[in-house]
Amino acid sequence: MSGFVSFVGAGPGDPDLLTVKAVTRLGEADAILFDDLASRPVLDRARQGVKLVPVGKRAGCPSPSQAEVSRLLVEHARAGMRVVRLKSGDAGIFGRLEEEVSALREAGISFEIIPGVSAASAAAAAIGIPLTRREKARRLQFVTGHGVNGQLPKNLNMAALADPAATTVMYMAKRTFPLLADRLLASGIAPDTPAILAENVGHPDQNLVRSTVAGLAEMLTGRSSATPAIILYGPLLEGA
Amino acid sequence: MSGFVSFVGAGPGDPDLLTVKAVTRLGEADAILFDDLASRPVLDRARQGVKLVPVGKRAGCPSPSQAEVSRLLVEHARAGMRVVRLKSGDAGIFGRLEEEVSALREAGISFEIIPGVSAASAAAAAIGIPLTRREKARRLQFVTGHGVNGQLPKNLNMAALADPAATTVMYMAKRTFPLLADRLLASGIAPDTPAILAENVGHPDQNLVRSTVAGLAEMLTGRSSATPAIILYGPLLEGA
Repeated sequence: MSGFVSFVGAGPGDPDLLTVKAVTRLGEADAILFDDLASRPVLDRARQGVKLVPVGKRAGCPSPSQAEVSRLLVEHARAGMRVVRLKSGDAGIFGRLEEEVSALREAGISFEIIPGVSAASAAAAAIGIPLTRREKARRLQFVTGHGVNGQLPKNLNMAALADPAATTVMYMAKRTFPLLADRLLASGIAPDTPAILAENVGHPDQNLVRSTVAGLAEMLTGRSSATPAIILYGPLLEGA
Repeated sequence: MSGFVSFVGAGPGDPDLLTVKAVTRLGEADAILFDDLASRPVLDRARQGVKLVPVGKRAGCPSPSQAEVSRLLVEHARAGMRVVRLKSGDAGIFGRLEEEVSALREAGISFEIIPGVSAASAAAAAIGIPLTRREKARRLQFVTGHGVNGQLPKNLNMAALADPAATTVMYMAKRTFPLLADRLLASGIAPDTPAILAENVGHPDQNLVRSTVAGLAEMLTGRSSATPAIILYGPLLEGA
C-alpha cells in the first residue's frame, strides 16, 4: 500500500487565495507537512484529525534539513497516507521543490503539483498595479536574495537585473537588498527607480512601503527582521 | 449609485484552479466581461441570470479595441453593477491590466485586483517541474512574443534572455519563437537547451511537447495556429 503526495501551493497566506483544488486536497489529507510560512488560517481548512507535521524553522530551533523533510514525506506516503506538502505562494517558485520531487521519484511514490498564487502576483494585486506594462515593462523577472549559504547569490546577471525596462521581484529580499542595490546603482540603474517593500502579503498585518531603490536600500541597511518580504522594483510602479 | 469592478485572474482554465475568492466574485457578479481565452467551465461558476459580455476576439470578427473594453467596464459599473473583469492566468502578467485600471481611476470607480495562478506556474506543475532551481536556475523571467504590433518586441535584452542560468517563459510564443530562437543561438545559448511547448494548459486538450530550443524553432517555423501557448526554456527542464 503506497500513499500519494500533493505538493500544494498555498498562495500568499489569505485562505481565500487558495485554489479550489488546494482546499479539496487539504480537506482529504491524512497528513500535512508545512513550513512556518504557511499561515494558520490555511491549515484551518484541513479536516479534523489530520496529522500536522511542521517542517520549517521553529523559534530557537534549527529547521529540519532538506534531506529530513524528504525522508518525512516518503515515510508518511509509505504508510499509505494522502500527504499534502504545503508550500507558501507557488510551490515551483523558490520553493525547494526539486529535492523533494527527486526523493519521491527515487522512492517510486506518485505525486502531483498543484500550482498556487505567487507572492509576486499577490503583492502587485494588493498594491493595485500590474507586474507587466505593454510599453515600459515587457519583461518580468524573479530572483532570490538568498543563495545556498544565505548570502546574495554569486554570478548575478547584472545586465538583466539593472534593466530599466523590466519589473524585478526579489524574494527573501530584506537582508541582502542593500548589497544588491549597490550593484544595481553601479550598473547604472536610476537611484529613484520606484521600489516597494511588501511584508506579510495576504496576511492581516500586510505592510506595503513605497519608496525607491536607493531609499529602500538606506532603510534596510543594518536592520534585521524575520518578517517574510519581497521587494519589487522597476518602471511598473510609476503612477501607482 | 456606482458599482464596483473586480479584476479576477481566472488561472489557466481549469475551474478547480480558480481561487476561493474568484469563485465568490463570479457567484456575486451582475456582469462578467471576459476574453475568449477564459474557458466556458470557468463561466459556469457564475450565477444564473448574470450578464455575460464577451470582449475578446471572435471568429471572423475583430476584437473590441482596448478603449472599447474600458468604456464597457465603466458603463456597467456606472449602472450600479458588481462587475467582474475576467482575465486568464494572473491578471497582472501580460493581461493589459494597466489601461483598464487607468480608465476606472479616471472615472472614479472603485476596483480590486484578485490575483490568479499564472499560466507559467500551471504549465510547470502539469509538467512536474519547478520553475526555479536552487543552483542552476536562480532567476525566472517572463516575456511576451507579441509586441504592440504583434511582432517580436524590439530592444530585447539578449543578455537576459540567453542566460543559461535562468528559466524563461515566453507568452504568446508560437509565431515569433523561431525568430527569438535565431537571436538566442546567435547570443550563444546552446541549441540543445531544453524547451517545452505548452498548449491549452489546464484545459482537457492540454498538449505538452518536450524538445529543445533548436527543435521547437524548427517545428514552429512556418506553422500558424491560434491555440494559446507558452514556451519554457532553460536548465530547469533537465531530468524532467
